[in-house]
Amino acid sequence: MTNDEILSLTVLTSWKLIISRFDKIVGGLTDEQLQQQVAPGKNRLFYLLGHLTATHDRMFPLLGLGDRLHPELDDTYITNPDKLLGDPLSATELRRAWAEVNNKLTAAFERFTLEDWLQKHTAVSDEDFAKDPARNRLAIVINRTNHASYHSGQAVLAK
Amino acid sequence: MTNDEILSLTVLTSWKLIISRFDKIVGGLTDEQLQQQVAPGKNRLFYLLGHLTATHDRMFPLLGLGDRLHPELDDTYITNPDKLLGDPLSATELRRAWAEVNNKLTAAFERFTLEDWLQKHTAVSDEDFAKDPARNRLAIVINRTNHASYHSGQAVLAK
Repeated sequence: MTNDEILSLTVLTSWKLIISRFDKIVGGLTDEQLQQQVAPGKNRLFYLLGHLTATHDRMFPLLGLGDRLHPELDDTYITNPDKLLGDPLSATELRRAWAEVNNKLTAAFERFTLEDWLQKHTAVSDEDFAKDPARNRLAIVINRTNHASYHSGQAVLAK
Repeated sequence: MTNDEILSLTVLTSWKLIISRFDKIVGGLTDEQLQQQVAPGKNRLFYLLGHLTATHDRMFPLLGLGDRLHPELDDTYITNPDKLLGDPLSATELRRAWAEVNNKLTAAFERFTLEDWLQKHTAVSDEDFAKDPARNRLAIVINRTNHASYHSGQAVLAK
């Protein structure tokens, strides 16, 4: 294995691990249990699942990987706090969307070379990227992995 | 900047960001507020601060960076659940230990070349590392960054 391959593998292993941990948390719950709040007055598990699905779905255009699969989730799970708007998808549909988005992203990441990882993401200008080459796709995926881990820490409290 | 330098910078930026976010959470709290639980019946913020300090301190031998600074924290914050043992340090001392450990680790990471990042950590045998070269120092630091993010997600719930 070359250093570049080891690097890709290391980052991908972390991404997959965090996704699989969140999968395990919500996969072990009934649809009814998904309506629980992580703590009194805090977000529902359902909201966190919607929030992570929407956030990950936004990576398709952000990383130049094509169109989003579920833009309908943003209003409810990114723009607004929990319970302000009704859930646009059923639990079954949302669980399916979560898996679909992550599987498609993971398949794309598995084809990334080191050059691909270090390309700029689409929310940064050429000029700003020249000043700060750390604003690359790798940074986005590491950041989103941390973000999923952040909400996993909350989700386990509901158990 | 070479690709190797960009890689180091990207990983380090993520590590520093997550540490600084946890710093901001606990830095904004009085010593008394650190005694709050993140949710009813869950860990105190003080415990999470001890737990993250101990976990990060364990990276010194794990990454071959020398001796630990605070091995006295493990019993209370890693081996046992919250409140089983008394806190071995005062809030002031624990805040200082947290900063001390992270500053020393960060200074070491800033000197890492790509070769340094991809070296095996000390908890894996040569044989296992040959089979799985992703068991390297980079994997440990990415994992610990995710771990700090996980507990940050819990810590913000106490506010």
